Amino acid sequence: MLRVKVGFQTAWTLSPLSNKKEYMAQEELMEKIVSLCKRRGFVFQGSEIYGGLAGTWDYGPLGVALKKNIENLWWRMFVDSRDDIYGLDSAILMNPKVWEASGHVGGFSDPLVQCEKCKRRFRADHLEDISKCPNCGGKLGEPRQFNMMFKTTVGSVEGDDMTVYLRPEMAQGMFVDFKNIIDSYHPKLPFGIAQVGRVFRNEIAPRDFIFRVREFDLMEFEYFIREGEWEEKFEYWRERMQGWFKSLGFDESDVKEVEIPDGERAHYSKRTIDFHFRYPHKFDEIGGLAYRTDFDLKNHIEHSGIDLSYLDPNTNEKFVPHVLEPTFGLGRHLLAVIVKAYTEDELGGEKRTFLKFPPHLAPVKAAIFPLLKNKPELVEKARGIYRALKTEIPQIVFDDNGNIGKRYRRQDEIGTPWCITIDFDTLEDATVTLRERDSGEQTRVPAAELTALLLERLRV
Amino acid sequence: MLRVKVGFQTAWTLSPLSNKKEYMAQEELMEKIVSLCKRRGFVFQGSEIYGGLAGTWDYGPLGVALKKNIENLWWRMFVDSRDDIYGLDSAILMNPKVWEASGHVGGFSDPLVQCEKCKRRFRADHLEDISKCPNCGGKLGEPRQFNMMFKTTVGSVEGDDMTVYLRPEMAQGMFVDFKNIIDSYHPKLPFGIAQVGRVFRNEIAPRDFIFRVREFDLMEFEYFIREGEWEEKFEYWRERMQGWFKSLGFDESDVKEVEIPDGERAHYSKRTIDFHFRYPHKFDEIGGLAYRTDFDLKNHIEHSGIDLSYLDPNTNEKFVPHVLEPTFGLGRHLLAVIVKAYTEDELGGEKRTFLKFPPHLAPVKAAIFPLLKNKPELVEKARGIYRALKTEIPQIVFDDNGNIGKRYRRQDEIGTPWCITIDFDTLEDATVTLRERDSGEQTRVPAAELTALLLERLRV
Repeated sequence: MLRVKVGFQTAWTLSPLSNKKEYMAQEELMEKIVSLCKRRGFVFQGSEIYGGLAGTWDYGPLGVALKKNIENLWWRMFVDSRDDIYGLDSAILMNPKVWEASGHVGGFSDPLVQCEKCKRRFRADHLEDISKCPNCGGKLGEPRQFNMMFKTTVGSVEGDDMTVYLRPEMAQGMFVDFKNIIDSYHPKLPFGIAQVGRVFRNEIAPRDFIFRVREFDLMEFEYFIREGEWEEKFEYWRERMQGWFKSLGFDESDVKEVEIPDGERAHYSKRTIDFHFRYPHKFDEIGGLAYRTDFDLKNHIEHSGIDLSYLDPNTNEKFVPHVLEPTFGLGRHLLAVIVKAYTEDELGGEKRTFLKFPPHLAPVKAAIFPLLKNKPELVEKARGIYRALKTEIPQIVFDDNGNIGKRYRRQDEIGTPWCITIDFDTLEDATVTLRERDSGEQTRVPAAELTALLLERLRV
Repeated sequence: MLRVKVGFQTAWTLSPLSNKKEYMAQEELMEKIVSLCKRRGFVFQGSEIYGGLAGTWDYGPLGVALKKNIENLWWRMFVDSRDDIYGLDSAILMNPKVWEASGHVGGFSDPLVQCEKCKRRFRADHLEDISKCPNCGGKLGEPRQFNMMFKTTVGSVEGDDMTVYLRPEMAQGMFVDFKNIIDSYHPKLPFGIAQVGRVFRNEIAPRDFIFRVREFDLMEFEYFIREGEWEEKFEYWRERMQGWFKSLGFDESDVKEVEIPDGERAHYSKRTIDFHFRYPHKFDEIGGLAYRTDFDLKNHIEHSGIDLSYLDPNTNEKFVPHVLEPTFGLGRHLLAVIVKAYTEDELGGEKRTFLKFPPHLAPVKAAIFPLLKNKPELVEKARGIYRALKTEIPQIVFDDNGNIGKRYRRQDEIGTPWCITIDFDTLEDATVTLRERDSGEQTRVPAAELTALLLERLRV
C-alpha cells in the first residue's frame, strides 16, 4: 500500500497525472461515465428540468440499487456482524448549541477568493496560485473565511425563531447520544456508534460530478476507546478499512493512504489518514480515519453540563473516552465503484463498454430472456423461471426486447453479471443458457439449479 | 373495514375515545411506550443533552433496526418484487422553481393562531374552539397563514444567493425526474417511481411523540396511469395498501379508511383516502392514497417549458399521464408497529411487559444464552452457535448477563421472538432450548437445525 506524506494540499500536488495526454484521457473517461450514468439511470442532475441546482444530484433506479448494495454491505460488515457497534439515526436538525460546542459555528469555514474581473469564486486552498484567476487570469481578491453550514429557522412566530443548521457532519449525533447509548445498553469499552445519513455543506465550488456536492450521504462510526490504546486501535481500523475497500473489488493500487501531517489536520485530530481513490480527476478522498482524542465529549460536557464520562464496571474508574472515527463517503464510494468497473474491450469482434461490478454489488444480478418474444411457450417458461428466481434474488430483471445480442450489450453496460436465456431446448431438457458478462462465455445449466448457483456466487 | 366520512377534521371529531377513563388509559399507554423506547434504545429525544429541539427525535440501535426492517420490507414489496416500479433517491435541496410550480411557495401553509395571554401557538385546524386558548383560557388572535417550508440559502457570495427550501414532500422529485426515467428505461404505462427519504416541515406545534415532527421519512410512490383507468387503479392500490398493513401484523380493526370529502382534499386531488391507525392519542393518519390527476406534470410542463408527456409506443398517442400516490409515513409506521406490539400479561405468575412484534419485523430475531457465564465450555459452545447463526441472520444477540429469567424478560421487553439457551445437555446431545416469547414455551431443538428453523419462521 502506498503511503505518502503531503504538504499543502492543492488540486495538483496530489495528482498522479503527470502529462497532458493522460489528463485528457482521464477527463474523457469522466465524461463517458457521467454520460453512461445519465443514459442508463444511475445518476441524474438534480432539478434538471429547471436548469439544475449546483451541487445536487438525483440517484436513478440503478443508482439507488447500487447505493443500497454498498450501504447494506457496510452496515453488515461494521454493525450487524459485530457485537461492539451500535446503530443510530440522529436528526439532521439539531439544537444550535451542538454546533457551538463542536466548534463548527466558529470554525467550519473554507477560505474563499473571488475574481475581481469575472466574479467567479474559488476555494483558496484548492488553487496553486492565489494571485491570478484560473478562469480568466484576472486579479483575485483577498481570501475570506466562509462558513459552510446551511442555516435555517425553526419556529413559527417572529421573535421566537431559532437559527438552526443543517448538519455538516454526522459525528456530533453520536457524541450527543453517547449517554443514551451508555444508559440503554451499558456497553463496555471499546465500543462504537454508527450511522448512515445525509449531511449538507454549502460548497463554494461544487465539481467533479458527484464528488464534491452540497448534500451527500456518509457512512461513519465513532469508536470509543481508552486513551492508552489509541495507536493499537488506529492500526486495527486502518486494516479493517483496507479490508472494506478490498470487499468492494478495489486493488491495492486503487487506494492510497495519505498521512495528514501536523498543522494540516482538523483542530480536534491528533492523527488522520485520508484514503484516496484513483478517480479520473485525480487520486482524491473517499474516506478517512481520524483520532479525535476526547475533544468532542469534553466540549459537550463543558457546554451541556451533562456528565458524559464512562464508568468502568470492573475497576470503578471513571473517565472520558477517546475516540477513533472511520468515515466513508457513500456517493464517493458509488462513483469509485463505477470508475473501477468501467471497462472497454472487444468481444466477438465488436467494441463494447461494460461495467465489471463485483456480482454482490451489481444493481442487477441477472437478466432473464426468452429467446423469442413472439413464442408464448418460451415467454411463459421464462416468466416462471424469472418469478422463482426473483423471490430469492430480488435484483433481477426480465427482458424480451430486441435480439439476444442487443440484450447482452444492454446488460453489459449496466454491469449485470449473468444473462439467462430460455430457448427451445429449455422446453425439452429444462436447461438454460447462462452467459458470463466478463468473458461472454455461455454454458448450459439446469434451470432447477439456478437459484443455488447464483446465491453461491453472490456470497461475499 | 371501517369507512367513515368526516367533516372538518379536528383533534377530537375523529377520536374513538368517548370517555375520560379510556382517554387516561391511552395517555398512560403512550407514556409507557415513550419510556420503553428511551430506556431500551428505540427512540431518544433529539439534542437531548442541550434540552432538545422540538419536533426532532433520534433513533437508537433498536429503532434503527426496526426502521430498516419496515423500510426494507416496503422496498421489497413495492419496488424489488415488481416489474413496474422504479426506485429513485432525489436531492432534498431542489431548485426553488420546483416549489413555485407545485404551488408550495404560494400555498403550503397552515392556519396559525397565537394566544394573546400565554403566547402559545396552535394550529387553528386542530382546535375545536378557536376563541379561547386550550392552555390558559386566554383570547386567541386572528388565524394567520404560515408557510411550513424551511428556507435556507445556497451560494457563497452576497447578491448571488439563492433561497431554497428543504423539501416538504418527496413527490416533486418523482415528477421532476419523470422524463429521465422515461428516457433511460422507456417504461410502459402504467408504471411507478418510488422513493424513501427525509422531508422537513416547520410544524407549528410538534406533538404526540414521533407522530407530528419537523423532520421525518416517507415511503412513497407516484404511479402513472391513463386518465380513464384511475378508478380501477385506485381500487387496486387501496387493496395493496391494506395488504401492506396486514403484512405488518395489523388487524382489520387497527386501520380504518377515511374518505376525504370534497372541499377538504389538497388542491391537486380528485379523490383521497387517508389510512388511520389506532394510535394511543387517537385514530390518526399513517398513510394515504391520493389521485393527483395530471396536476403536477402539467404544472411542471408549464413552468419548465419541458415536454413531460408520454408517447404510447403502440398507438403513437401522446399525452400527459395521470397519477396515483400511495404514501406511507415511516416514523408513524414504526410507532404503530410498537403500539400494536405493546402487551402486558402474566407469565409464570409474574407480570411482564413485552413487544409482540411479528418475527420478520423484530429488531432482534433471537438471543443466544450460555446457561452459566462462568463455565467456559458452555460459553464457548454458545459463542460457536451464535457465530454460525449470525452469518445467516445478522439481527441476533449474545447475552450472558444475569440469570436466565432476567435475560428472558430483557428480550421480551424488546420483542425478541426466540431465546436459545445452551446448557450442559447441549454438550452431550447437541440440542438447545428454544423458548417462545409469546407463550414462554420451551422445546429442545437440535442445534444443527436452528438456522433452517428460524429462517423458515422468518419468511413473510
